[in-house]
Amino acid sequence: MAERRIVKPQPVSGFPEWLPEQKLVEERWLAVIRREFARYGFTPIETPAIERKEVLAAKGVVEKEIYALSRLAAGEGEDPATEMALHFDLTVPLARYVAQHFASLTFPFRRYQIQKVWRGERPQAGRFREFYQCDIDAIGNGSLGLLNDAEMPCVIHAIFSQLDIGRFVVRLNNRKILQGYLESLGLPAERTPAALRVIDGLDKVGRDQVRHELQGQAGLDGAAAERLLGFLESEGELGALRRIEAGPLFEQGVAELTEVVDGLHALGMPAEAFAIDLGIARGLDYYTGTVYETVLVDRPDFGSICSGGRYDNLAGTFTKQQLPGVGISIGLTRLLARLFEAELVKPGPATAADVLVTVMDKAVLPQTLNLARDLRAAGLNTEVYTQLNKKLGDQLKYADKKGFPIVVIAGEDELARGEVTVKHLASGEQVTVPQRDLPHAVRARLAPASEQQE
Amino acid sequence: MAERRIVKPQPVSGFPEWLPEQKLVEERWLAVIRREFARYGFTPIETPAIERKEVLAAKGVVEKEIYALSRLAAGEGEDPATEMALHFDLTVPLARYVAQHFASLTFPFRRYQIQKVWRGERPQAGRFREFYQCDIDAIGNGSLGLLNDAEMPCVIHAIFSQLDIGRFVVRLNNRKILQGYLESLGLPAERTPAALRVIDGLDKVGRDQVRHELQGQAGLDGAAAERLLGFLESEGELGALRRIEAGPLFEQGVAELTEVVDGLHALGMPAEAFAIDLGIARGLDYYTGTVYETVLVDRPDFGSICSGGRYDNLAGTFTKQQLPGVGISIGLTRLLARLFEAELVKPGPATAADVLVTVMDKAVLPQTLNLARDLRAAGLNTEVYTQLNKKLGDQLKYADKKGFPIVVIAGEDELARGEVTVKHLASGEQVTVPQRDLPHAVRARLAPASEQQE
Repeated sequence: MAERRIVKPQPVSGFPEWLPEQKLVEERWLAVIRREFARYGFTPIETPAIERKEVLAAKGVVEKEIYALSRLAAGEGEDPATEMALHFDLTVPLARYVAQHFASLTFPFRRYQIQKVWRGERPQAGRFREFYQCDIDAIGNGSLGLLNDAEMPCVIHAIFSQLDIGRFVVRLNNRKILQGYLESLGLPAERTPAALRVIDGLDKVGRDQVRHELQGQAGLDGAAAERLLGFLESEGELGALRRIEAGPLFEQGVAELTEVVDGLHALGMPAEAFAIDLGIARGLDYYTGTVYETVLVDRPDFGSICSGGRYDNLAGTFTKQQLPGVGISIGLTRLLARLFEAELVKPGPATAADVLVTVMDKAVLPQTLNLARDLRAAGLNTEVYTQLNKKLGDQLKYADKKGFPIVVIAGEDELARGEVTVKHLASGEQVTVPQRDLPHAVRARLAPASEQQE
Repeated sequence: MAERRIVKPQPVSGFPEWLPEQKLVEERWLAVIRREFARYGFTPIETPAIERKEVLAAKGVVEKEIYALSRLAAGEGEDPATEMALHFDLTVPLARYVAQHFASLTFPFRRYQIQKVWRGERPQAGRFREFYQCDIDAIGNGSLGLLNDAEMPCVIHAIFSQLDIGRFVVRLNNRKILQGYLESLGLPAERTPAALRVIDGLDKVGRDQVRHELQGQAGLDGAAAERLLGFLESEGELGALRRIEAGPLFEQGVAELTEVVDGLHALGMPAEAFAIDLGIARGLDYYTGTVYETVLVDRPDFGSICSGGRYDNLAGTFTKQQLPGVGISIGLTRLLARLFEAELVKPGPATAADVLVTVMDKAVLPQTLNLARDLRAAGLNTEVYTQLNKKLGDQLKYADKKGFPIVVIAGEDELARGEVTVKHLASGEQVTVPQRDLPHAVRARLAPASEQQE
């Protein structure tokens, strides 16, 4: 046969790909995230990877960052271009979904959505062109209670406290407080969005730069800028906020934030897991009330690992229905990539299986396979070593390399006696048990932490 | 505010999108599929949605069916086109993955992969441009034992027997048997692929058409075509096959098939769940041994719902390593769409939650939220009704519409007595229990079948 040309496989910049041991961590995370989203009564939906271009354009995102689809080839007279492009977030698809299926949905509509999104960004460290987002939103028809705003941090806490990422704090604020305070400083309404974007940079660019920009872009005078900075950096204690006189919008913001915080306490959110932070503004213009960011206490340099907020109208582009909502989004891929890189999360075994059944002798293969059947029937993830005529030593090496916790060894003599050997690889402990006790013996030797996949 | 232009949301042909109650069925299916894949020791991987065009082109697929990516806009002097296109299956990405990460993987490498794939087909009934595939493959380095071929139907059986799709049969064959038999009929080797593709159509186009094509495209004479048809339609009884003298390749195929069937029995595959079918050829040229198709006994018109086979070399395009493998693929979206359409699978509730906690009185909101906290801590998926000041009747209507099995009602008086009411919606049964017994009372009233999501 002629030598074939080899296409060298290589990574594509910005498109992360995990090894099995890393993917297993991601799968475990996804299972926790799905479980806790459902625990709070959110229901999964999934939208196609694509939307029509006019749907995506509706949000006015940077077109350079949108990937459009065209067929690699087309027939005579056909246009290879299509009307479709890959979605760049899960919010625009949600808005389109809710508007399109409005009559089939029951409100408040509580959905979770875990999908990849694509952004044609210039690739750089920590920036991906393809990544998972894990979103929940509660959408009301006409109105939506503030209890939903209180549930969001509880969901975040329920998830992250299971993911072994160290201490984290959900920081929250209410945009009406900021807007009201800006009003009280005499800032014209049309400059509010610019001022909020400047405030959003406080963590990143620092106090001096923000003071400079508040005087420049936002047009505050020096004294007002300084007063604002003092306010943003203040404790955010609710009693103190209630004593500030800054007009009705500010008061409404404080009242909303108070209600959300009361809800957090009642829902069992630990006091140390959240904090009011008046400096949180969120850059996006469409937030109108509660806003959230989540930070790792020991790694503030990671920035916000889960953000979101309240908005007045989800789908104004697609329907005349008024659909207020509140939601949060976990940028799973970015977070995990950083945690792997910083070795704060270390991949474990390269297999999801609990046990490897070694194959000793072709003559007793049927009995050996029976053992595997029993283990699987008992709910144990079980791999059979499928290469016959390999020495036990080679099979044990394989088990060790892949990270199996348990190996089952069944020689001809043992099987004849109705017995089987269970070897715990980490400790080297080895016991011989009756075959009927095998599943129990394996389960007893699995670390309690190594729960089965899913 | 100026009236905004409304972009009418509408479905995109070929890109299916489920309502929540349908998506919940798909999620349950995905959870079963993932669990059983892992139960047999397959480990998840995920590849990007895209591959470099030259990687996809390597398989020689129809270019019209491949979606390439270009940015909607590009900067001055930049080319909006990219080197990337969406993958159209999970086999090419697997081949590229194994070749690229060869040194980091341990062989036999057993992976599962559940992802969407995209095909720019002309949309037609039952054909999708975006759909889920659920694949497993076992890949050997140099060699791979036939035990893997025996495990594939067991995995299929473990999955489909939990999915309530009625009776199904995994039909299997070995390509060497067909190739050997064709050889024994005097067919030149270069015509074998064409003949196998003709045979593959037996179920679809019928006996007469196949006889016609065997004489035409494959170039068999009338007597040989008739003998072949007789063979294809014979029982496929292993004893009878062993008595046929059709050369060494045929004999090897029969020996392999025998070993696979022995393995199936030892692994506990019920005899009625599989059958040898000598008419199964699979159209793809790269299969070289065992081949599988799975059919619904009562809906043969659905065609194969899960297919696959053994191949000699996975990744010849990307590496010089010889990597034999065997795998199967479930076309999840197509199957589910057909089952929905035929009403063989009926969507259930529009929520993944077990219980709705109604909110009766703002004065007792903290106590009510405490109840939700207790239910969640007990592992129950719990939604709180978040619109305050709604009558109980409205809240019950909401619960009914979404399909909650259980509603919790906590009025001021009850809470003062330390009690709470649990209402089972389907039966109308209503009991009042001490608050501390609430999780237990709810769990006792959940149908045993309604296991929690995940």
